[in-house]
Amino acid sequence: MAVYTQVDDQTLSHFLSSYDIGEAISFKGIAEGVENSNYLLETTKGRYILTLYEKRTDPADLPYFLNLMEHLVKKGINAPLPIRDKNGAALQTLAGRPACIISFLTGVSIDHPKAAHCAELGKILAEMHLALADFGEDRANSLTLAGWKSLVEQTAARADEVSSGLEKTLKDEIAALESQWPDNLPSGAIHADLFPDNVLFTKDKITGLIDFYFACSDSYAYDLAVCINAWCFNAEHAFQEDCAAALTEAYQSVRPLNEGEKHALPLLCRGAALRFLLTRLYDWLNPVEGAVVKMKDPTEYLKKLRFHQDAENERSYGL
Amino acid sequence: MAVYTQVDDQTLSHFLSSYDIGEAISFKGIAEGVENSNYLLETTKGRYILTLYEKRTDPADLPYFLNLMEHLVKKGINAPLPIRDKNGAALQTLAGRPACIISFLTGVSIDHPKAAHCAELGKILAEMHLALADFGEDRANSLTLAGWKSLVEQTAARADEVSSGLEKTLKDEIAALESQWPDNLPSGAIHADLFPDNVLFTKDKITGLIDFYFACSDSYAYDLAVCINAWCFNAEHAFQEDCAAALTEAYQSVRPLNEGEKHALPLLCRGAALRFLLTRLYDWLNPVEGAVVKMKDPTEYLKKLRFHQDAENERSYGL
Repeated sequence: MAVYTQVDDQTLSHFLSSYDIGEAISFKGIAEGVENSNYLLETTKGRYILTLYEKRTDPADLPYFLNLMEHLVKKGINAPLPIRDKNGAALQTLAGRPACIISFLTGVSIDHPKAAHCAELGKILAEMHLALADFGEDRANSLTLAGWKSLVEQTAARADEVSSGLEKTLKDEIAALESQWPDNLPSGAIHADLFPDNVLFTKDKITGLIDFYFACSDSYAYDLAVCINAWCFNAEHAFQEDCAAALTEAYQSVRPLNEGEKHALPLLCRGAALRFLLTRLYDWLNPVEGAVVKMKDPTEYLKKLRFHQDAENERSYGL
Repeated sequence: MAVYTQVDDQTLSHFLSSYDIGEAISFKGIAEGVENSNYLLETTKGRYILTLYEKRTDPADLPYFLNLMEHLVKKGINAPLPIRDKNGAALQTLAGRPACIISFLTGVSIDHPKAAHCAELGKILAEMHLALADFGEDRANSLTLAGWKSLVEQTAARADEVSSGLEKTLKDEIAALESQWPDNLPSGAIHADLFPDNVLFTKDKITGLIDFYFACSDSYAYDLAVCINAWCFNAEHAFQEDCAAALTEAYQSVRPLNEGEKHALPLLCRGAALRFLLTRLYDWLNPVEGAVVKMKDPTEYLKKLRFHQDAENERSYGL
């Protein structure tokens, strides 16, 4: 959450001259996005975000992310629109890094979502899935079973440093998920990281979805499971049944889940909890020297995983 | 240059309810200001900066800084205006910290100023000094002779780690400055840190002065000396005579320097160079664990100090 790459005014001015978006009248580095350098750019014609993609982003994935955002905007979903330069190119190079200007979206993230916010989320999540049905591009999810298995191998030996018994929990869980993970659910492009900080609200209505840099091909219901994990637990990590019921009901009002998806939901929620448990655990065990990123607590997702393990069936989520 | 203190949406919403500036429609942490947490806040009524003052700022100094900004705005200088709440208070407490909302100023900082930018700067610097003549509040400069002497004592023993011979240079310089430092120059409130990143330009005209958190009582010519150091050397730290001439000429077109100020200028420039050399050296030798601040090179100001030591008289600066 910081600006890693500095862009000076002359570099910016030269960069903007290839666009048709006017001249800079304000330019501030913003403390957003863990992975990249982001600037809030105001020009004589409007407001934008300039992103420089740092090394954790694979440049080969960028056309997928940018095309996906553009597709969503064309379909009427409030996602950031990648701005094309005078030659029609959205993806650029700036200060030696891949870079892109996207449109700025207003709205404020909700830190402690209530059921009404979850209902808004469920509706737009389903609308986004429907809008992406004809997207037509594919990107494998590097953070699903195979990726989790690799992360378990890299973290298990030291996992008990974080929580006693965690090594066994991880190994048991990955084995359980491997044996039961569904592979026949309706799938397509998903956001895969739709946490509250990636959803902008204005007066309790969603006015923007942002940060599509984990988007990938996976089952739609898995995207819903990520949201259940991220939106339906309170600050003490206790499950909020009213939030989950609002989320799944609103989702289904736009895109009804089939029986297979409903049945799989508890397992998908376990997978989603494991995914964030593992990446947080990895970051916790491998702190980056001089990193400006605030470490996130892995045990939050251990608690969530335990909730999902105990969930009897999909009715626990209001289905 | 980061957000140290997180403000969640409910805290923000409650905080804004004591003001008459509308509701938040966007709220982004900005990577600006080394010392404090800054948010760019857009409401239904306008744009603002919300600052939470972190521990390096003495809360007792805040009324001085806020009153000074308000005084400047009343006098027609484009400084941030501290916004008062419904009870008339500008200084608040938020998330356990002193906090203030100030108006947002448009403009972009110039990273590599040219003579034309220095002329703009000289004019507004003098206008600011005139505008502050009747400010009437006092704050001792903690970073003048006595403060430098203390910093020399804290850094000299290890100074040669940074540059061979630096310990002797520091001790000789502080002795020379102590014996010659002028105490009878026209004085008042000064900015004391008017670096290019604290000056906002729109189309080569200055549209804002920001970051008054080093403001203090000192000689006006010392403020000019800080600007000569910060604006009149190129990226390789070589002195730019045309920049200095433009700066001092423009300054004098608004507020002519008296003979004492002119004569003292080389010495004041040495003092200003020593001030930034010492604070950078101190930070270099005492890195803060987990600090998100990019370390600044102390030797930049050693080179500048040497230039000023070699300057024969005020004519070196275009006077």
